[in-house]
Amino acid sequence: MKTIQERIEEHIHTISEFTATPGNGTTRLTYSQEDLKTRNYIKEKMKELGLEVREDGLGNIFGKLEGTLKDGPSVLIGSHFDSVPNGGAYDGPAGVVTALEVASLFVENQLKPKYPLEVVALIEEEGARFAGGLMGSRGMVGALSEEEFYRLKDKEGISTVDAMKAIGLDPTRPKTRYPKTMKAFLELHIEQGPFLEERDIPVGIVDAIVGLAQLEVTVEGKAGHAGTTPMDRRADALVKAAELIAQLPKLAVEEGEGTVITTGRLNVFPNGANVIPDRVVFSIDIRSGKEEHVQNVIKKVKDLLDCNRKNGIEISVEQSLYMEPKLLDEGIKEMIKETCNALNLEYLSMNSGAGHDAMVLSDVTNVGLIFIPSKDGLSHCPEEWSDVRHIANGVQIYFEVAKRLTEAE
Amino acid sequence: MKTIQERIEEHIHTISEFTATPGNGTTRLTYSQEDLKTRNYIKEKMKELGLEVREDGLGNIFGKLEGTLKDGPSVLIGSHFDSVPNGGAYDGPAGVVTALEVASLFVENQLKPKYPLEVVALIEEEGARFAGGLMGSRGMVGALSEEEFYRLKDKEGISTVDAMKAIGLDPTRPKTRYPKTMKAFLELHIEQGPFLEERDIPVGIVDAIVGLAQLEVTVEGKAGHAGTTPMDRRADALVKAAELIAQLPKLAVEEGEGTVITTGRLNVFPNGANVIPDRVVFSIDIRSGKEEHVQNVIKKVKDLLDCNRKNGIEISVEQSLYMEPKLLDEGIKEMIKETCNALNLEYLSMNSGAGHDAMVLSDVTNVGLIFIPSKDGLSHCPEEWSDVRHIANGVQIYFEVAKRLTEAE
Repeated sequence: MKTIQERIEEHIHTISEFTATPGNGTTRLTYSQEDLKTRNYIKEKMKELGLEVREDGLGNIFGKLEGTLKDGPSVLIGSHFDSVPNGGAYDGPAGVVTALEVASLFVENQLKPKYPLEVVALIEEEGARFAGGLMGSRGMVGALSEEEFYRLKDKEGISTVDAMKAIGLDPTRPKTRYPKTMKAFLELHIEQGPFLEERDIPVGIVDAIVGLAQLEVTVEGKAGHAGTTPMDRRADALVKAAELIAQLPKLAVEEGEGTVITTGRLNVFPNGANVIPDRVVFSIDIRSGKEEHVQNVIKKVKDLLDCNRKNGIEISVEQSLYMEPKLLDEGIKEMIKETCNALNLEYLSMNSGAGHDAMVLSDVTNVGLIFIPSKDGLSHCPEEWSDVRHIANGVQIYFEVAKRLTEAE
Repeated sequence: MKTIQERIEEHIHTISEFTATPGNGTTRLTYSQEDLKTRNYIKEKMKELGLEVREDGLGNIFGKLEGTLKDGPSVLIGSHFDSVPNGGAYDGPAGVVTALEVASLFVENQLKPKYPLEVVALIEEEGARFAGGLMGSRGMVGALSEEEFYRLKDKEGISTVDAMKAIGLDPTRPKTRYPKTMKAFLELHIEQGPFLEERDIPVGIVDAIVGLAQLEVTVEGKAGHAGTTPMDRRADALVKAAELIAQLPKLAVEEGEGTVITTGRLNVFPNGANVIPDRVVFSIDIRSGKEEHVQNVIKKVKDLLDCNRKNGIEISVEQSLYMEPKLLDEGIKEMIKETCNALNLEYLSMNSGAGHDAMVLSDVTNVGLIFIPSKDGLSHCPEEWSDVRHIANGVQIYFEVAKRLTEAE
């Protein structure tokens, strides 16, 4: 029989091959063919464990190990299975795989939980296909309404509903889940930063998740021929966007305390070498552990945009996502610490710089989140790597925590 | 029978409907389905006039009215039929339509030219699909080699050859044309600037075409998660590209004398809202009436890039196109002026701020180029518009000039 580490290795490897960019990292957009292949793999593994498999109207996957208490709330464990374009094999899948292996230990040890255990695999955490991010968990808790979900389109103009149907999912199924059906949510995620590796500590126990805001900025000018429009008659949307983006980093640096700001996505229209761009659309992502920092930077960005609306340049801005900083559940944190001590695993209490599904679910249930080290602190790139031994530690920790939370015997 | 103006109107209207972006300007990329439809229309019109139709190994179209002199060199007349993304209906097609109507007048008047008249419709002048621009004419005169042509790929990685085959063109046919087969090249183009309209003058006779250089700049940094990578550990390719682009306009303004610089195309990788970009690729287009200005700006751009290669940022630059300023043929200019006087049409001698196929062909044959007014000076946008009366003037002018050059009777 294979060891847990070997099984984790096999899961991660198999899932990593479901990518639209083989040889160039993981590109697994929500509702893509790669989503479908991963989805089928996860569902198959759930069925092999005897879990009751269900997909909701967003495409989130749930595999339930029934509890002895009739209609008791479930202990959920899992993460997301989508990726950014050309990302890594661990961001998301590490947590899904952990959940599968915790369920596997329940089955192997023939445990009878009082409260059900549910393995969860969520969609569109990254927001790489439909803007915003955290879509699976936000839809599940009702923070993203059914109407908003139906209105979302990808860059090609394909709606969420059409994209779901294209891979055989049913968007008419229920999307939200009543808080009273959930007892807790446990997530393991790679750190995506350098701290655990630098300190050689295998486990990070997350105290709080930073708040984040995402803005979508549109700069509009006037198209014209690159050769025949004099410099002093131009309203060049890209030059203006460039001036703005070049000034963003200092807004975060001035704010301090780990506040960060990023423009990751930018599209130029019409995007021809000899046409002055008339429209540029770009994202601004702002994160900080303190809400006042996020708010201050949003205000500074808006002030900067305000004083650049002139000389034929129009600028509009929409807030596509806003999440307050979140403290995680004290009781679960305590259980994780006790388990780490019992297993003789060193741990570090830390904040999370990234938004996670755990953050969204913390609005409706008790949440725990642990980090494992990321090699060189890298994430969202093909070089992203974590040691399977650290994932296996996570399985051991959450097996113990899940036993206590489900009151398994 | 329809008037020339009505026929021009019909041609322009029909061709404008061959667009990939209906309702949002003309998008006619080389070797696309819209290219194929336009191509078929042009070939059909040539055949209706009894012209001998031929396509070369680049996809350029030639419609020949045979001359009485056995194997005499041809008088070529025409322009290109591709467009920028979301461009207008006149940039290119106005010149092709003029050529069709000049040939039509030859046929209607049963003229027997001594030297053949050839209507020419060229590909990929804009460089919107395959970088560089002026591809049809550069390939025709051998300035773009067969090997270089085969190596070119579009943004999706589709090669020229595969794209040609996809619309049934034969890339194995001869591409270059011997200079001795050409007696002259005549082109009509919209001005793409405001001067003729502002002065209410119907015809611009081009003295010289500005020189131009196109650079392709790649900025490389390091990808990372937008939330977990501290500001002081970033090598953000987009922030660096933005800093550079924001500084470009002043390089042209300092140089003066109408020197212009434009970044029209920019692509971000991986282009996800929560990933720090690790690569940005953008174009720089530099134009001036004097070669020293073009050279000075290239040098300033390279100096700027040089002093930004640090802190984990790599910058590479390739020159994808270089054309010296070109003086056009004195004899043909004189013929055009005489014709304008005879037709009682006011004209203006002017420089061309844009590179045109006429510029490329001026290396191998005698070239004439006339401009007609552009409404509000706009081009490369859906609002691009020229009065068909001005195109009809062009037909009358070039009918007279072509009669003299072909020695028609």
